[in-house]
Amino acid sequence: MRYKAIVSYDGSKYNGWQKQPNVKSIQEEIEKSLSIIHKHPIVIVGSGRTDAKVHAIAQVFHFDSELNINNDHWIMAINSNLDNAIRIQSVELVKEDFHARFSVVSKRYDYYLSTNYNNPFIINYVGREYRKLNLEKMKECAKLFIGEHDFKTFTSSQIDERKSCIKTIYTLSVTYENGVYHFIFEGNGFLRYMVRNLVGTIVEVGTNKLNLEEVSRMLVVSNKHLCKFKADGEGLYLVKVNYESR
Amino acid sequence: MRYKAIVSYDGSKYNGWQKQPNVKSIQEEIEKSLSIIHKHPIVIVGSGRTDAKVHAIAQVFHFDSELNINNDHWIMAINSNLDNAIRIQSVELVKEDFHARFSVVSKRYDYYLSTNYNNPFIINYVGREYRKLNLEKMKECAKLFIGEHDFKTFTSSQIDERKSCIKTIYTLSVTYENGVYHFIFEGNGFLRYMVRNLVGTIVEVGTNKLNLEEVSRMLVVSNKHLCKFKADGEGLYLVKVNYESR
Repeated sequence: MRYKAIVSYDGSKYNGWQKQPNVKSIQEEIEKSLSIIHKHPIVIVGSGRTDAKVHAIAQVFHFDSELNINNDHWIMAINSNLDNAIRIQSVELVKEDFHARFSVVSKRYDYYLSTNYNNPFIINYVGREYRKLNLEKMKECAKLFIGEHDFKTFTSSQIDERKSCIKTIYTLSVTYENGVYHFIFEGNGFLRYMVRNLVGTIVEVGTNKLNLEEVSRMLVVSNKHLCKFKADGEGLYLVKVNYESR
Repeated sequence: MRYKAIVSYDGSKYNGWQKQPNVKSIQEEIEKSLSIIHKHPIVIVGSGRTDAKVHAIAQVFHFDSELNINNDHWIMAINSNLDNAIRIQSVELVKEDFHARFSVVSKRYDYYLSTNYNNPFIINYVGREYRKLNLEKMKECAKLFIGEHDFKTFTSSQIDERKSCIKTIYTLSVTYENGVYHFIFEGNGFLRYMVRNLVGTIVEVGTNKLNLEEVSRMLVVSNKHLCKFKADGEGLYLVKVNYESR
């Protein structure tokens, strides 16, 4: 039987979603818990990776199991073996052809950028910016990214050159309240570092170090070594993963 | 010259305010920073201790220094040697007879108790309660503690028997919003564990395990071994320390 699960996590103490040797990852912690429950190894498949320090309100993964357990009991069982920083929110039986990564239709990421560098309670939960920012310019810059574009300039310099970087952004909003800039990204897919590089670029426009023409040119040239403005991981949240309703 | 300083801290990673051997304390971290700045040891005096895991929005301490530095430069200098979880908010020159502990007139502590045990972002910042609580009964219980009382029943069982436990509580409110109970305590002084024991007792009344008559009796008998209901440190915040305006 295939199960779809939703999990929230505080990424502060983890080296990201993806299992890797010698570091703590969210995927490994959840697999350990499921393996204890099943008494044999279980592998989970996430909707995508999140980087070190990055948080999730609702990351999605699937796993296959011979156990027939209801939602509430799955939640209790998996959470009982996990650190409090990782909390399963729901587990539901799905069709065998559901795939947490390949069935994704769209995703939402939020980014919080704070101008308050003297509040000890937010350090792990926001990016920080000390410079004065022009919100109207940031909003204009954000508009440049909406729609279908080749986002190669705004991904990791380590990705495979042959990989397609064409993605569609449906929503990119920037608002400001009480010292915090709030970015909402919705799109059909996001490349590695793409949200953080877009936030970093919008912020540079907000400081007047970069103008809209330069950003338009960055977008057109598709050079994965071009963007040097990656925002901190601490401010990024995977908020929602959408699938076709079937 | 004597300086009065206000500091905010996220207590999650610390073993409380008070310097102790072999554990991390807020006092020690601040003294280390000041000692680097002065190039000789500096001792600070806090308004009182906070326990392990307990937070402060505005703890107050004083220190003596031969350096004549303005507020903004003190903040930058002290914070530059501190972890981000401890942030100095202000430093001001005061009269030589100001004493962070002995000059205290009143204090405010807040306590947050959450019924949501599945949110990984709040675990270090709230106490948690899984049982159903009757808010009206909790409010009635809170009223019993307002005024001048001998609070020996609600302090640590390790305190010196001869110590006076007579304190006055001016305000004790309990409100509920969005799954979180918020307690506000204002009083002329608080004994060790007093706020956490009072919260724990009010919660027991909220669950109907304890009634108001039993609580009144606990208050009257003044037995420091009687209260077994200490709420978690994670939910407690030292919010304000008030001094005579001179």
